[in-house]
Amino acid sequence: MNIKVAEKVTARRVQMDGAADVSMRMLIGPDDGAPNFNMRMFELAPGGHTPLHRHAWEHEVYILAGSGTLRTEDGDRPIAAGNCVFVPCEDLHQFANTGGATLRFLCLVPSDSA
Amino acid sequence: MNIKVAEKVTARRVQMDGAADVSMRMLIGPDDGAPNFNMRMFELAPGGHTPLHRHAWEHEVYILAGSGTLRTEDGDRPIAAGNCVFVPCEDLHQFANTGGATLRFLCLVPSDSA
Repeated sequence: MNIKVAEKVTARRVQMDGAADVSMRMLIGPDDGAPNFNMRMFELAPGGHTPLHRHAWEHEVYILAGSGTLRTEDGDRPIAAGNCVFVPCEDLHQFANTGGATLRFLCLVPSDSA
Repeated sequence: MNIKVAEKVTARRVQMDGAADVSMRMLIGPDDGAPNFNMRMFELAPGGHTPLHRHAWEHEVYILAGSGTLRTEDGDRPIAAGNCVFVPCEDLHQFANTGGATLRFLCLVPSDSA
């Protein structure tokens, strides 16, 4: 039974092409023995964004703080603290911080995602 | 791509034996097409608690608001907003709200949990 303070988990800068000012903390994952899915916390500085991409696994997202946009095939949609978002596999998506404070969200993925 | 306001998702009272003053919202689940795991939001009124039990699937938990205790095989451990918790399958557990405000947390489970 692991209980952690999320903000004390090591934050690593996301180095993927197309990412800007994004860090990620692996809150619950393989090191905890999680067998099926991983809980990650992302933090985007104002102006930061994740890559615009699509992939073969889904995201389950909960916005903890801040505000921004979610770019989709159908345009940009606003997101803010207290929203939850399901991104189906192969759907185009990009999270961007268009606010003045950190955009912080949980993003869970299946363990076998790349 | 579903974006929801979590607090507008229908809250249902948890009727399980051993639960008291607990409600649950299915934020992301089968109705969204989620293929692997479900995101639920639980709210416990002050004094409320989930059942003391164990089962064959894991929990991945993030505490959004409030404080309380997590009863385990090894005793009660404090939990509070900003904590994340991994409950392995078959580990005894019970979440209890020992604070004065609502204890709100996300609890994710595999889709094939009972």
